[in-house]
Amino acid sequence: MLGRTYDEQVCSIARALEVLGERWTLLIVRDALMGLRRFDDFQHSLGVARNVLTDRLGRLVDAGILERLPYQDRPLRHEYRLTQMGRELGVPVISLMHWGDRHLAGPDGPPRLTRHRDCGGTVALTFTCAGCGGTVSPGEVDVVAGPGLHKTMNDA
Amino acid sequence: MLGRTYDEQVCSIARALEVLGERWTLLIVRDALMGLRRFDDFQHSLGVARNVLTDRLGRLVDAGILERLPYQDRPLRHEYRLTQMGRELGVPVISLMHWGDRHLAGPDGPPRLTRHRDCGGTVALTFTCAGCGGTVSPGEVDVVAGPGLHKTMNDA
Repeated sequence: MLGRTYDEQVCSIARALEVLGERWTLLIVRDALMGLRRFDDFQHSLGVARNVLTDRLGRLVDAGILERLPYQDRPLRHEYRLTQMGRELGVPVISLMHWGDRHLAGPDGPPRLTRHRDCGGTVALTFTCAGCGGTVSPGEVDVVAGPGLHKTMNDA
Repeated sequence: MLGRTYDEQVCSIARALEVLGERWTLLIVRDALMGLRRFDDFQHSLGVARNVLTDRLGRLVDAGILERLPYQDRPLRHEYRLTQMGRELGVPVISLMHWGDRHLAGPDGPPRLTRHRDCGGTVALTFTCAGCGGTVSPGEVDVVAGPGLHKTMNDA
């Protein structure tokens, strides 16, 4: 499925995992996509140690995925909201959920379903082509060198 | 984007990360999607310690994502091939790549581009609805309780 031009140093997947590679980090993002905002709510949802949660939330703020904003003055309290960059993680997160649904859900079936708000239909992620407008199967997707890769290879 | 029915114990994202949560694991899958099969090729691509790589490859075999198959008799040598379950990780992996391209690529642009093999057009991942046949924006996706969640909640 992927091409042969891969180079460990220049890869958006490696860079994404550099930010998201710890398990708790992506589960925090999942909870934030569900609407959680407050430290205690994340802590209750995840059952993770408070110092670990503080560290992971701080990294997500540093990475630009969450913003830390005051929601109360006396005493001063902060909450965590997804930035646009963070909200765009909804696609990889749901993509991972669908894969888990297919292969890890067990006999009871998927814990959650994705539905189209307007009509209630089942929502799936599909590859589409901006050139011909068609649906593209995973086997028809070529991964080729982009400008970011060429630049670095020429510099080297 | 996600609904309010989340329960830590019954979640396909948490289950997927249970298998894929370590950074090396998903980078091994990425390399396998690119066509790598042999231990030394993974080791060269990733620069990871051999004992760590052995451990991660073994976990991917145990999880059903890779198969370990002989490719040579004398001396006996094995290679690692993606199963169908493993190949289906192409969607989450490319989804993560596109997110990294948008937010982490820097001024040189994306290291790699996804192209439609037939027409060369740019490929994107979009939500589509099996009910009305339309394209669905991320904000129109509802995540609702599925059969796997209800079952467990009734049991509890």
